[in-house]
Amino acid sequence: MAREQAVKAALESDREVAARLLGDLRRRFQQAASALALACGPDGALEARLLDERQVACYDLAWACTDLLAAETVVGSLSPDTGELDARLGLIGAVEAIGSVLGRLENLYLELSLDLAPLQDLAADPQWAGLRRTCAGASSLAAAGRLLTGPDAEFGRVALDEPLVMAQEAFRRFAAQVVAPQAEQIHRQDLTVPESLLQPLREMGVFGLAIPERFGGTGPDGREDTLMMVVVTEALSEASLAAAGSLITRPEILARALLTGGTEQQKAHWLPKLAAGDPLCAIAITEPDFGSDVASLSLKGTRTAGGWLLNGAKTWCTFAGKAGLLMVVARTDPDRAAGHKGLSLFLVEKPSSEGHHFDYRQDRGGRLSGKAIPTIGYRGMHSFDLSFDDFFVPHGHLVGGEQGLGKGFYFTMAGMTGGRMQTAARACGVMRAALRAALQYAGDRKVFGAPLASFPLTLAKLSVGAARYGACRQLTYAVGRMLDAGGGRMEASLAKLLACRSAEMVTRDALQIHGGMGYAEESPVSRYFVDARVLSIFEGAEETLALKVIARSLLEDALKDALKDALNGAGGRGRG
Amino acid sequence: MAREQAVKAALESDREVAARLLGDLRRRFQQAASALALACGPDGALEARLLDERQVACYDLAWACTDLLAAETVVGSLSPDTGELDARLGLIGAVEAIGSVLGRLENLYLELSLDLAPLQDLAADPQWAGLRRTCAGASSLAAAGRLLTGPDAEFGRVALDEPLVMAQEAFRRFAAQVVAPQAEQIHRQDLTVPESLLQPLREMGVFGLAIPERFGGTGPDGREDTLMMVVVTEALSEASLAAAGSLITRPEILARALLTGGTEQQKAHWLPKLAAGDPLCAIAITEPDFGSDVASLSLKGTRTAGGWLLNGAKTWCTFAGKAGLLMVVARTDPDRAAGHKGLSLFLVEKPSSEGHHFDYRQDRGGRLSGKAIPTIGYRGMHSFDLSFDDFFVPHGHLVGGEQGLGKGFYFTMAGMTGGRMQTAARACGVMRAALRAALQYAGDRKVFGAPLASFPLTLAKLSVGAARYGACRQLTYAVGRMLDAGGGRMEASLAKLLACRSAEMVTRDALQIHGGMGYAEESPVSRYFVDARVLSIFEGAEETLALKVIARSLLEDALKDALKDALNGAGGRGRG
Repeated sequence: MAREQAVKAALESDREVAARLLGDLRRRFQQAASALALACGPDGALEARLLDERQVACYDLAWACTDLLAAETVVGSLSPDTGELDARLGLIGAVEAIGSVLGRLENLYLELSLDLAPLQDLAADPQWAGLRRTCAGASSLAAAGRLLTGPDAEFGRVALDEPLVMAQEAFRRFAAQVVAPQAEQIHRQDLTVPESLLQPLREMGVFGLAIPERFGGTGPDGREDTLMMVVVTEALSEASLAAAGSLITRPEILARALLTGGTEQQKAHWLPKLAAGDPLCAIAITEPDFGSDVASLSLKGTRTAGGWLLNGAKTWCTFAGKAGLLMVVARTDPDRAAGHKGLSLFLVEKPSSEGHHFDYRQDRGGRLSGKAIPTIGYRGMHSFDLSFDDFFVPHGHLVGGEQGLGKGFYFTMAGMTGGRMQTAARACGVMRAALRAALQYAGDRKVFGAPLASFPLTLAKLSVGAARYGACRQLTYAVGRMLDAGGGRMEASLAKLLACRSAEMVTRDALQIHGGMGYAEESPVSRYFVDARVLSIFEGAEETLALKVIARSLLEDALKDALKDALNGAGGRGRG
Repeated sequence: MAREQAVKAALESDREVAARLLGDLRRRFQQAASALALACGPDGALEARLLDERQVACYDLAWACTDLLAAETVVGSLSPDTGELDARLGLIGAVEAIGSVLGRLENLYLELSLDLAPLQDLAADPQWAGLRRTCAGASSLAAAGRLLTGPDAEFGRVALDEPLVMAQEAFRRFAAQVVAPQAEQIHRQDLTVPESLLQPLREMGVFGLAIPERFGGTGPDGREDTLMMVVVTEALSEASLAAAGSLITRPEILARALLTGGTEQQKAHWLPKLAAGDPLCAIAITEPDFGSDVASLSLKGTRTAGGWLLNGAKTWCTFAGKAGLLMVVARTDPDRAAGHKGLSLFLVEKPSSEGHHFDYRQDRGGRLSGKAIPTIGYRGMHSFDLSFDDFFVPHGHLVGGEQGLGKGFYFTMAGMTGGRMQTAARACGVMRAALRAALQYAGDRKVFGAPLASFPLTLAKLSVGAARYGACRQLTYAVGRMLDAGGGRMEASLAKLLACRSAEMVTRDALQIHGGMGYAEESPVSRYFVDARVLSIFEGAEETLALKVIARSLLEDALKDALKDALNGAGGRGRG
């Protein structure tokens, strides 16, 4: 008991030091943000040309903010009630993040010719050295590792209400018992998610998570329940990214688009079907020549008797084969200068099909064909190249009717934040799976006469990985709470950015712990590794999120604050 | 001209600063090495238990040394004759490496309770800040990136003699014209390297690179020619890691084992055949229960009339199907306590076979069966699980004859350094391929109305990747020269460590630049990414090299120096 009390006291004191350092770091971060904002908006408004010129600095700023918020969130989540393992992991994660933020800020200060002294003072702060030694030194990594490799270790806990805990348990159980046994085969043979997985998921209501009860869904009426979506997604992704954890993304995006822009009739007709997972749906936005550049999309929608004709190509449309309903973004205003204001949203019905290609012809001559793009991972739903030739869509399938014309981009965006949170949760699930596989392997495998898990370097790698996962998980759930309270849009991108990159690192190290076996397709960790690689690419590529969402938002805020300060200063002077 | 002169002068001055900082850093590194050596060998000899306890510090030390030597080598390679692009990349690489060494040393100083002040002084050195700003700041990364994306940019040049330059050109041409067109199919369909690749490689003499001319090879008599092996390997690996660049590894290891331990008769009989690539060969060391732990190998060799019977299992035996000759490490002394002194080396003849499994039965009842292990990359040769059942090997196939009994481990080790250099060269080839793919894609692909390569963040990523490749390449070639001059054994592990980890990072970023297309199997970069992942696992896993080879060697040297200093000090005091 005395030992336990002493450890608790030491961890609590470390937590206080970390919180103090993070406060200092936040102020230094703000200074960099202000300076960069003024560099990109010397006349009081951000200029696109200057933002482009400063991409590298913007990228550093976005990552610094990401790591900083993650560390603040983790440290903020610690309390005297936190178990020793999570307390240790939280502090390891905080130390890693602080070190990373310091590096980014040094780059920024150099780039912006700011005085380096305040950063160097912080870097040389004896409490910072002390924190590194006590929390992230070899003996501390080993102590966390021993707890982590102990029997029934639970790590990365977040405080959840009872219904969420129950959902987590139920979906973890389902994932382990039903999904996991099929996951390897689906991946290695590049199969389509079978009905034996889809049907129970329909029955468990996962396709209706974003849909209010009055439309047949399992979501609450009149508000979002991001946390539930995150819980379910993470649990399913632990067994399979593509064959389970990603199934919710598509109905999530389409449901939010319909809730935002659909006519009452469209909502009443489609939402209950989507909630039931019948038909399954897919989202067709990206085009072969345009990835993140939505404003340049060129698939054409032209008026014809009774509706519209779609002509053009889409790509990376995941699940388009199995889906019976596609949400298609099309250009209805032929004037390219209209940019994203010329885009509208169509619902395209098609027969569901298994396999890697389909060719659907309408009686009146229209055609929609699809061909799956083979990928190194994320297999099970298949991502399709689509070709639309004079494909007819009736008037009633234009989302929002005539009122919805030109609002396709806006309706689409409504689902994007959810998609990003969903992706952060998917990354968390993949990380947890990789860590559990590495823990298992390290416990079983003997080298030089002792289990791998008895060696300090292995313990250190496991601890660092679990700390990364813990930080991502705390951040993801915290942002989920923000969204449910009406905020957190920028932070959703930030959680996505961190969790996806972390998933690459954690799966990489988990594979390494397996040695040669990790590279074999029969080891699930090889699948986690290739699956994790897609996360930083889709649902907002890393660079797009960092530059166009996060940095942009930070700089806008910083510029506003700077202007306010200037005005206050002027007012102050005026009053003086 | 004036601009060119000014740039040259600025780069030269930066080089001088970098060299000075590296000198300071080397002294601080030595201090950490000495302190760690004393911690692991308080009584004047390293103790296994203490080395194990200090694994995390040993790992940091090995990596610090690796990055430090790479930076020293790159900076040492720069001269006023170096082109602007390579000069810029060299300095970018040096700045990255110095930053990384500083981080590792901080960990070590904290761990060893050394005074942090000298490190903090270096970190706060205005010349260090200046170097970062001028060499690795956004505008410098962009300047390097513009040169890199310019027409016919050549990067990562090393100074080579005429025969090496000719070989490099010839094998790069062969790789591009003959290997590259088949590489994707071999990977995606998991085929066996076809004769259409093997036959011309036989004719070009690549299987005899490690074999002296008097034994029918293309290597020089009486000395090693590591550089030629590195040149050829890198060039071939650029087109395909497994279907070309890795073909030399096996004859390299077997030839060196035979040259070291074979009887005259064995050398005269086998070396010309190996040099001709007929039969092809494979190396069977690893066993299912023992990876890097060679001393515990348990496949049994027992005497029988006229020879030996082999019984047991091997795993990860690459190319065992196609090979007609296996080099097998077997335990001939049943006393386990004999450790690696109980191991002997056998030459096992078998029919060459295509495909993923084989089952070879001897007339007298012996059996050798093999089954390929499916892997996420490194496909084309297949890595086999092997099972030996009363497999008969005649006396003449025991390497070294009765004299060779118990020396199998020692003979095997003779080829390991070459294998590590070969792997560093393979990693360089994969990096160059990934960079060239990313450069091509970034030039072709338009986003937001301009080529990807026109954006500063893309240019920065390309520059950092090319700088990493350049550092690895300089180090690999420098160590190749050391080996040819009779030294460099530890450094070979260090070059392997750096190049393999860097290949993971460079292929990751190259894939990211491709966006979604990078994740598609039709993009070669997706293959480079999964192929790169094997490099840190085989031919000495990262952890094994860092702890058992590099740190061990550094600490032994540091301990010797410390003892010498102590003696000198004592002598000095005695004299005083």
